[in-house]
Amino acid sequence: MNRVCNLFNIKYPIVQGGMVWCSGWRLAAAVSNAGGLGLIGAGSMHPDVFREHIIKCKEATDKPFGVNLPLLYPQMEDMINIIIEQEVKIVFTSAGNPAKYTSFFKEKGITVVHVIANSKFAIKAEQSGVDAIVAEGFEAGGHNGREETTTIALIPMIKDLVNIPVIAAGGVANGRQMASAMLLGAEGVQVGSRFAITEESSAHSDFKQRVVDCKDGDTILTLKSVVPVRLVKNDFCNRVEKMILDGKTTEELKHELGRGRAKRGIFEGDLSEGEIEIGQVSALIDRVEKAEEVVSGMIKEYNAAINSLTEL
Amino acid sequence: MNRVCNLFNIKYPIVQGGMVWCSGWRLAAAVSNAGGLGLIGAGSMHPDVFREHIIKCKEATDKPFGVNLPLLYPQMEDMINIIIEQEVKIVFTSAGNPAKYTSFFKEKGITVVHVIANSKFAIKAEQSGVDAIVAEGFEAGGHNGREETTTIALIPMIKDLVNIPVIAAGGVANGRQMASAMLLGAEGVQVGSRFAITEESSAHSDFKQRVVDCKDGDTILTLKSVVPVRLVKNDFCNRVEKMILDGKTTEELKHELGRGRAKRGIFEGDLSEGEIEIGQVSALIDRVEKAEEVVSGMIKEYNAAINSLTEL
Repeated sequence: MNRVCNLFNIKYPIVQGGMVWCSGWRLAAAVSNAGGLGLIGAGSMHPDVFREHIIKCKEATDKPFGVNLPLLYPQMEDMINIIIEQEVKIVFTSAGNPAKYTSFFKEKGITVVHVIANSKFAIKAEQSGVDAIVAEGFEAGGHNGREETTTIALIPMIKDLVNIPVIAAGGVANGRQMASAMLLGAEGVQVGSRFAITEESSAHSDFKQRVVDCKDGDTILTLKSVVPVRLVKNDFCNRVEKMILDGKTTEELKHELGRGRAKRGIFEGDLSEGEIEIGQVSALIDRVEKAEEVVSGMIKEYNAAINSLTEL
Repeated sequence: MNRVCNLFNIKYPIVQGGMVWCSGWRLAAAVSNAGGLGLIGAGSMHPDVFREHIIKCKEATDKPFGVNLPLLYPQMEDMINIIIEQEVKIVFTSAGNPAKYTSFFKEKGITVVHVIANSKFAIKAEQSGVDAIVAEGFEAGGHNGREETTTIALIPMIKDLVNIPVIAAGGVANGRQMASAMLLGAEGVQVGSRFAITEESSAHSDFKQRVVDCKDGDTILTLKSVVPVRLVKNDFCNRVEKMILDGKTTEELKHELGRGRAKRGIFEGDLSEGEIEIGQVSALIDRVEKAEEVVSGMIKEYNAAINSLTEL
């Protein structure tokens, strides 16, 4: 029996990434209804909006769903109170120290998963008492680790270090990649990019079309001295890359980045000056679909893939 | 039947990377004798040394073996004459335009494989008439592509673009990773780092020990404005990274790099000032073994791995 399915009480070990400006209640409920685990992305929501999305998600599905909460969120107290008040059962934490809130959530009976990108934080997360780990490779979209370890190198390494289930993220957009990640030792996958451009994603339609048009080499991990983030190369991104080549300081880069560029790119569809956060698998994604089609298609491909190899 | 095994007339679809300063006749013959395909790495050899290694390899194995020839090699004429004179049957080309020599080699009855890291060159290689492609991901050691596409994203993409067999490279050091790469659509794997630290590799023992000691995050893809290369972070590498942050020019970086640093690091074992070329999988490699043990161990792990998944 699959431990990730058991842990969340879901049918398929596919977690939809709780992405900023994409993952509202519509997407989360659709994925959960399809047999995966939907996550509401709290990172881009004001507390009141976050509460509303949880309430609507509960109305839209009777299946388990969760929330993704970046630990650097400014109004953490408010968000935690809403999670408790709304009786959210599953919390994915990211971008911070897992030791800070895990035991609190666990005492409330909440299942906790932490996102890591290196061996040090994998061990730290397990020690802090989380129920599972998302191990995210360099190819993933959005914010990313400094070690730049890719999924094929990361998953076997983390699997050997911890006893709790490992969920692979980064480079997983189809059933073959899912099977591949599971062979490496993952017991489930977290899929971001492919769900970011589903019909139920709240991303702007121009953002979705840009992702469909992506070819290999169209994304880059940039702003490493600020916080590493994988973006589609556009006017903003190219300007920042030039500043880096010219030796500009971290402060100058932060100033150029400013605030609100992820919203501008993903939610408002400003393809030249917004941050277009997406993974390398954007090169493989060729259409906008319903979330349910993504889940059922991946499972079909997965089952075909695992029967495609013969012994040597 | 496996097309890569058929193409080279070998037992297992495992190619040993033709790495500078590691891959002489001892390593190539040992891998070929173990049922894989050994490659002599011409990139670090003077023509006379290259001829000697081919002659010794033919004495040490009656199995198929090949050579890896970087197309930027300064004395190409000499090398090509030696390949013809010594009746080498398999040539892997890299670091250049595959159109330049492929038809010449093919006319001589030589099997030709070209190493690529993006979709553009995959198509170009197939059009030039090569028999197979090595698709190398960002996680690989040594020289690398500018697109930074990782193996899990690259292989399915290339597989969909070409009809000739795809051999996956980058991030493959054990049988699980091999099975994972084959599930993505590869029909064989090229293994570099793990063979670089076998007993038969001509790398310095201090280099091998440094690789055994590697943890995640110990390597970095650097010198991107010159030629991207994945190295273990050491005094030289850290100095270069600082120069990049300070906005130094490509010319200044080239001057700092100078000549002979790969030899210094890999062959002479200068761990602080040499280039320590190795892949991210160095974090997973924990001992120096015989090449035969690597091949048989990988096949055993591969067979166990492909039977480890059940349908969902």
